[in-house]
Amino acid sequence: MTTENSSGEHLVYISNPHISKMEEDVLYHFNLGTKTHDLPAIFGDVKFICVGGSPSRMKAFIRFIAEELGLAKPDMDYPNLCEGTDRFAMYKIGPVLAVSHGMGVPSIGIMLHELFKLLYHAKCSDVTIFRIGTSGGIGLEPGSVVLTKQAVDSCFKPEFEQFVLGKRVVRSTDLCADLIEELLSCAKGMNEFNTVVGNTMCTLDFYEGQGRLDGAFCSYTEKDKFEYLQAAHDAGVRNIEMESTIFAAMCRASGIPAAVVCVTLLNRLKGDQITSPHDVLVEYQQRPQKLVACFIKKRLGKA
Amino acid sequence: MTTENSSGEHLVYISNPHISKMEEDVLYHFNLGTKTHDLPAIFGDVKFICVGGSPSRMKAFIRFIAEELGLAKPDMDYPNLCEGTDRFAMYKIGPVLAVSHGMGVPSIGIMLHELFKLLYHAKCSDVTIFRIGTSGGIGLEPGSVVLTKQAVDSCFKPEFEQFVLGKRVVRSTDLCADLIEELLSCAKGMNEFNTVVGNTMCTLDFYEGQGRLDGAFCSYTEKDKFEYLQAAHDAGVRNIEMESTIFAAMCRASGIPAAVVCVTLLNRLKGDQITSPHDVLVEYQQRPQKLVACFIKKRLGKA
Repeated sequence: MTTENSSGEHLVYISNPHISKMEEDVLYHFNLGTKTHDLPAIFGDVKFICVGGSPSRMKAFIRFIAEELGLAKPDMDYPNLCEGTDRFAMYKIGPVLAVSHGMGVPSIGIMLHELFKLLYHAKCSDVTIFRIGTSGGIGLEPGSVVLTKQAVDSCFKPEFEQFVLGKRVVRSTDLCADLIEELLSCAKGMNEFNTVVGNTMCTLDFYEGQGRLDGAFCSYTEKDKFEYLQAAHDAGVRNIEMESTIFAAMCRASGIPAAVVCVTLLNRLKGDQITSPHDVLVEYQQRPQKLVACFIKKRLGKA
Repeated sequence: MTTENSSGEHLVYISNPHISKMEEDVLYHFNLGTKTHDLPAIFGDVKFICVGGSPSRMKAFIRFIAEELGLAKPDMDYPNLCEGTDRFAMYKIGPVLAVSHGMGVPSIGIMLHELFKLLYHAKCSDVTIFRIGTSGGIGLEPGSVVLTKQAVDSCFKPEFEQFVLGKRVVRSTDLCADLIEELLSCAKGMNEFNTVVGNTMCTLDFYEGQGRLDGAFCSYTEKDKFEYLQAAHDAGVRNIEMESTIFAAMCRASGIPAAVVCVTLLNRLKGDQITSPHDVLVEYQQRPQKLVACFIKKRLGKA
């Protein structure tokens, strides 16, 4: 659900009647606030948001997209807009905002609550949001990019479960089919790396939760592990990460078109450890950035 | 459970038969590994570990404890031992290791899996671990320090639930009663701030999961919120944070004595937003550090 303004633009919807009644809203983990910052002036023109786990990767993305959009100037610096806190980092160039979210559902959840309120306070309209990240692949060559069709939980259900006031609430994790098509068309045009559409499994743990044999605890066999990964593959899962279900659920509830674009760092059917050389991993991590940059350029008529 | 070496010291126990058979173990999110780093030489003397969400706070703690233990030298730098990754940060001085863990159960889970493997590879013995952090208080004046008796979930149960190969597994979150007594005795000796023993509720979300009225979504009333917080208080909960259940469960399963020491930044019965001035919050955040430093000094016979 979104609300439209008088120009027919879609504003970000906040499903909380208390917010408009607050005299001040402190976005604590961003170190930003409605009284201390002119949010419409700083963020009002944002149209594309990229979120990812690592702060340094988000800064790298902003440098890259600035070049791609012809907005970079020599010796340009990109200040962290969340200065004074190390919970998250945020960078902006023109209509593009990049925000780090740390690892796991709770961390990205905090970030999205505050991001959506920021977009609301800043009166942003017609926003599209991408999660660009890394993941473990199932049956794909490392370096493949997966566009998430459905974000599913560790039982392969397209649901996000949370506890609100101690009661179980389940939200849908449907993602925007049109965005997937548009991204897939970009990938075909680029033809630089393998790109597939598949389901993405989101877990609360990296080791036992993803069937790894190399955590501090492991009470199952290699056979159990492969049976689980095979069952995931049979359910359409092509990669595993730790943020997609809440990302899909929260974006959907706020009416913001959203896509999940993750590169696979390894094939989990071949192992558990990420042992590729540093420069290979760095190149892999640039692939979702390149794909989303292509999308943004097309939308802005610059491609 | 721990294993003893020939000197009667307690070694860190790894409940995973696969680890000892691995030719190399890459601790990916630390950017450390058994082939690339001499882990026993770097970490073998670690006896006290402090973990906390924020990297900069962990660096501040190492500076502080170095001064307290008389190990600081003028212009001393404390290099980040996880150089080359921004997932976590790690600092060390003498027998004290400080590691950041980000926000939420999945993030600290990744860190603890790799930390316990690091301690195992480094052949560390007789280790004690503390989580020092911030939290929301229930019925306490802001700035109070809570020593966690039981870490409980959002239904007030002393359990940590996780999904292993898609199946629900529940682990106990009991913490070490002796450590609480020792810390409480330090707090009484210091007599600098209010310190209480109580249960700590660990949630997967900061906004709806903790009954806040100021998230991007809120489908309940102020009355519902207060009823939930009152029920938590009736169940012995004195503060709310986002890491204690998995921290307690994983430390227990590894046989490492552990304590959770969190300061309350606000009283949730009076509000949801953290609006105290920056310098007041900074001083609050130093309180768990001071308490743990007092404990370490006592144990080392330096107090």
